[in-house]
Amino acid sequence: MRINKDTILCMSLAAKPSNFGTRFHNYLYEALNLNFMYKAFAPHCIEQAIQGVRGLPVRGCAVSMPYKEVVIPLVDEIDLSAQEIHSVNTIVNTEGILKAYNTDYIAIQKIIEKHAINPSGSFVLKGSGGMAKAVAFALKSNGFRDGIILAKNEISGTALAQATGYVWKKELSETDKTDLLINATPVGMQGAGYENEVAFLDREIRNAEIIFDVVALPENTPLIQLAEKYGKKTICGSEVFALQALEQFYLYTGVYPEKELFDAAAAFSRTGV
Amino acid sequence: MRINKDTILCMSLAAKPSNFGTRFHNYLYEALNLNFMYKAFAPHCIEQAIQGVRGLPVRGCAVSMPYKEVVIPLVDEIDLSAQEIHSVNTIVNTEGILKAYNTDYIAIQKIIEKHAINPSGSFVLKGSGGMAKAVAFALKSNGFRDGIILAKNEISGTALAQATGYVWKKELSETDKTDLLINATPVGMQGAGYENEVAFLDREIRNAEIIFDVVALPENTPLIQLAEKYGKKTICGSEVFALQALEQFYLYTGVYPEKELFDAAAAFSRTGV
Repeated sequence: MRINKDTILCMSLAAKPSNFGTRFHNYLYEALNLNFMYKAFAPHCIEQAIQGVRGLPVRGCAVSMPYKEVVIPLVDEIDLSAQEIHSVNTIVNTEGILKAYNTDYIAIQKIIEKHAINPSGSFVLKGSGGMAKAVAFALKSNGFRDGIILAKNEISGTALAQATGYVWKKELSETDKTDLLINATPVGMQGAGYENEVAFLDREIRNAEIIFDVVALPENTPLIQLAEKYGKKTICGSEVFALQALEQFYLYTGVYPEKELFDAAAAFSRTGV
Repeated sequence: MRINKDTILCMSLAAKPSNFGTRFHNYLYEALNLNFMYKAFAPHCIEQAIQGVRGLPVRGCAVSMPYKEVVIPLVDEIDLSAQEIHSVNTIVNTEGILKAYNTDYIAIQKIIEKHAINPSGSFVLKGSGGMAKAVAFALKSNGFRDGIILAKNEISGTALAQATGYVWKKELSETDKTDLLINATPVGMQGAGYENEVAFLDREIRNAEIIFDVVALPENTPLIQLAEKYGKKTICGSEVFALQALEQFYLYTGVYPEKELFDAAAAFSRTGV
């Protein structure tokens, strides 16, 4: 990569950055011969960092934990994808105007469409954090009406249920059946402390048709493995992660890379995380 | 160059950036295997850009026209090199504390020492802008007492003369002789509109011992060429430019590259300006 004075900078802001974004975007910039560069930052101060995005200028900026809400008053425009869930994961700077998006939300909408999941069916969504919000609102926008928010935390669980019009439950009964079972908790995630656990009970998996695990790392979580054992249709979190990164890439550069190149970039990025 | 999440960013802020710094620093980073990257910016807003330097964080930042004075209230500490001349060309960020330097001033001090120019001699300095200020104060700090500030602009000329204790003149008389003749105006500079002009009169050059042209591009300005024709000792602006960039490199990285590598980086950078 040859950086020159006209090279456009994109970045990520996270308390604990991984190498994924830096490797993913730079790989694609090089392959597509785009005069961009990408770098992860762990900001000293998020307000100052966003001022820098605006004033340097920086073209695009991924926003991760714990900044997804605090950046909202710092931008100029909020896309619907971020507005509904009150959570930002992407900022695009167009001539000093900062617009915030949530590409997790966009990616989940697209995945529901791509897998042709029938919105007249029922779903159970486990979790009530940031990702669960993105999933619940994406399901709502795709027309799902019959849903359960399954969350140990009553406060955030009932809040999400009320905001979306779904039902909150602390646990499922033995007879609860569902078409779509979604895990939006860190259970099964590598490095999160419960990587060998399965997010749902055995019978809950057997009582469902489609199992969607939002956990992206590893690709085959214990939940996905068990669901496949029972012959269920599965959707992996790596698909969400890749698609949301693709949406970010498009928002920054105006280019959608071909699938083959995109897969190569994602594979390259995972090796250096 | 492989950028990763730990790569340290340095940058320049200028209304009209050149490629020199970006090429120079990145060349050295690669050669020395330093996990740094460098990029020139033309900021939308200098206050926001400096906030970004502080908050992202960015390790080091070169400051060029027209920001050399306006950044002063935006930093936390001012090195003597920038304080005396009230002009900053370098900011170093150490854990959120921004310290401002002027490496032009440092470079000129070092050049005077390196060429063993006797401070008991006299000098004539042409110009009263930012670079002339750096030269005048560097001469003062090196012990020169007998000097003339030659400037068409009476306001800035007398101000600089008063601040340094030298004498302001609008032009030299036929009998004025000097040991050291210094050009700190853009006369002779490539692209400045007077690139074929010589900063001093023929007799002024003949009446001097050493000719120092602060203009860095081209390396052999019309003034340097004429001085060499008259057999005078000459000092080129490219030496100032290289030395001040070296000082910046050291302030950012803590590393002084070897002379051979440094020369290669400077030559590489000039090809892409």
